[in-house]
Amino acid sequence: MALLVQKYGGTSVGDAERITNVARRIAAARAAGNQIVVVVSAMGKTTDHLIALAQSVTQSPEPREMDLLLSTGELVSSTLMAMALRELGVPSISMGGAQAGIQTDSVHGQASIVHLNPARVRRELDADRVVIVAGFQGVTDDMDITTLGRGGSDTTAVALAAALQAERCEVYTDVDGIYTADPRVVPKARKLAGIGYQEMLELATYGAKMHPRSIELAAWYKVPVLVASSTDYAPGTLIHDLDDGETTMEISNKVSGVTYERNVARITMRAVPDSPGIVAHVFEPLTEAGISVDTIVQNASAERLTDVSFTVDRGDIKHALEVSMQVASDIGAADCVTNDHLGNVSIVGTGMQNAPGYASRMFRALSDAAINIEMITTSQIRITCIVDEGQVNAAVRVLHDAFELERE
Amino acid sequence: MALLVQKYGGTSVGDAERITNVARRIAAARAAGNQIVVVVSAMGKTTDHLIALAQSVTQSPEPREMDLLLSTGELVSSTLMAMALRELGVPSISMGGAQAGIQTDSVHGQASIVHLNPARVRRELDADRVVIVAGFQGVTDDMDITTLGRGGSDTTAVALAAALQAERCEVYTDVDGIYTADPRVVPKARKLAGIGYQEMLELATYGAKMHPRSIELAAWYKVPVLVASSTDYAPGTLIHDLDDGETTMEISNKVSGVTYERNVARITMRAVPDSPGIVAHVFEPLTEAGISVDTIVQNASAERLTDVSFTVDRGDIKHALEVSMQVASDIGAADCVTNDHLGNVSIVGTGMQNAPGYASRMFRALSDAAINIEMITTSQIRITCIVDEGQVNAAVRVLHDAFELERE
Repeated sequence: MALLVQKYGGTSVGDAERITNVARRIAAARAAGNQIVVVVSAMGKTTDHLIALAQSVTQSPEPREMDLLLSTGELVSSTLMAMALRELGVPSISMGGAQAGIQTDSVHGQASIVHLNPARVRRELDADRVVIVAGFQGVTDDMDITTLGRGGSDTTAVALAAALQAERCEVYTDVDGIYTADPRVVPKARKLAGIGYQEMLELATYGAKMHPRSIELAAWYKVPVLVASSTDYAPGTLIHDLDDGETTMEISNKVSGVTYERNVARITMRAVPDSPGIVAHVFEPLTEAGISVDTIVQNASAERLTDVSFTVDRGDIKHALEVSMQVASDIGAADCVTNDHLGNVSIVGTGMQNAPGYASRMFRALSDAAINIEMITTSQIRITCIVDEGQVNAAVRVLHDAFELERE
Repeated sequence: MALLVQKYGGTSVGDAERITNVARRIAAARAAGNQIVVVVSAMGKTTDHLIALAQSVTQSPEPREMDLLLSTGELVSSTLMAMALRELGVPSISMGGAQAGIQTDSVHGQASIVHLNPARVRRELDADRVVIVAGFQGVTDDMDITTLGRGGSDTTAVALAAALQAERCEVYTDVDGIYTADPRVVPKARKLAGIGYQEMLELATYGAKMHPRSIELAAWYKVPVLVASSTDYAPGTLIHDLDDGETTMEISNKVSGVTYERNVARITMRAVPDSPGIVAHVFEPLTEAGISVDTIVQNASAERLTDVSFTVDRGDIKHALEVSMQVASDIGAADCVTNDHLGNVSIVGTGMQNAPGYASRMFRALSDAAINIEMITTSQIRITCIVDEGQVNAAVRVLHDAFELERE
């Protein structure tokens, strides 16, 4: 008998019919001899609706009040799921974050779990019940309700799996697994049977479906996470520990997948006086303005002048440019130029870090396809090239071919 | 500086505009130098909507799950009220039943408060905040959320006022106080400035706006309760302890008001063999069938046969008659006859219990108006006559006149 933690997202529990369908899946998993803990998100657009309610009374809702308000969305879906299971004859019980023992700090809106005491969950499992836990929420020492921020329900599920030493955490969404590339761009993209935590982390950052935070937590506690479809029974992708001797043997290709992003804009501040601390002068005002900066490249200095380029979301470009122009004027840089029709494409793979040649193979493939590389950044297991937005799709396909990702 | 507990019902917080209006009233009461605890119900039709959601997944929702589901309605209105107050510059904080220290038994759907620890509420008041408490809910020893059943938010408010030793509990609704009679029936009905707990209990049972349970609690802890309008500033009615020397002096008339009910049906079981325990044989099957019996009259026995009459809600008459016919057959009674076009009219007043003559004055007044009395029951502070439904309005007016209730 295995203990499984299953997480279902908001779309999967969007109405009574879907809730009942999910309940049937849970009932089947239990009938197969498993103990089941289920984490649910709020139904469909519930969270948006609650945010709109708050905005109807105030322009600046207090984060603590917002948390208590938003936490109700997951309570509703949890109780409905417990009811749907009982309707199928499956004993079940729903719990809020407090009952499930999810203690957090008091950073409202973005709380972190500091301790998880699953005593009550364990007790209900021992009483042969399916336990439904409201995702995305916890409670402070002072019994204040908190929410865990973006990706919160995934984090709830992984944390429960870790605390309960579950055999697996299963995350059910509207995609049926992790692919070597976006199947809409690369029709022959292949679903991965397994992927390492670090690789998934890079893939998730670049647009896949699990929040990096929940993957980091899974990696830390070595919780295997299965990402699969909530509507069909196709095998999903298992995110697991590649250091584990057995699973490492599956890895035949050191690149796991290709990811991309559109809507990238770049600002280049030219002829910046190259003195110590100058980069801080450039970026602090952007941070204060709430603008999230992604890739940063500083070119080698020539005659004590340097060019600094960075990318932002296209939606932020106007605001970012205003701030940057002021900064350029303040620090005596020449000017700022922008390009707001960019995208990026990355290859991701744990195996790359100890094997040379991946970068040059990537650059060669893009070059052969006449795709110009505007900027380059790398991490231990990822190489990212900024390219013209119109060439993103072509770049993804070229790289998928170059690394033969369609092959098992 | 006085500590006030204010309760606002679902209509008063039905949308953003009403919530903001109520917030202004709270802000004014605070600006006048009071500490304020506010208890709110769920917004408008929220509870009905949540019940419909539950019914969309199951015909028989588990009471525990139902409680957790329904409790979200009051959490939403509480957080919105706290936000609206902050928008007006008033420091405020919202709490669920658990945070407010409302410990209940585990009778889901109809929990009773067993202990109330207002430490956190007190702490927030000391920090100069208005505290908004979600009404209608509490928490068991096991952290399970419970609801208090009908009139639950009134009970929350009175219990908090008792635990905090508040100067007063103020219940704001869509009526502006307690009247000597229904103003729709008696246009010259007068709003009472004050009324005793016991009198209010009888009035509440017969259709006024506070649940008897919350009044009993107020009476037990001697919490003065002001019932007033949530939309205007007319003085309301203070429900308080008439044994208090000062307030008793206000009482100039021993009858406080006249109440009535329509939709009353009566069943008379005739020629019941008059043996010990026979009444239990009559009523136990009705209880088992879930039929609520109101007035019961057993006529004096003649030749070991007795007639037993009782009233039920008109909606229950068909079912009640089926059960009664079976009982009559089982115990050897002659038959059952019904009258389903009845109502009742009552005079209520604490002063009546030690003063003779009220009953005869009541019967005389009805008789003078040619209103036939079908049945009579009395309590210590109430005399009720069952009359033809078509004569209910006339009876109310006749009694209002007979006891000169329009006079201060």
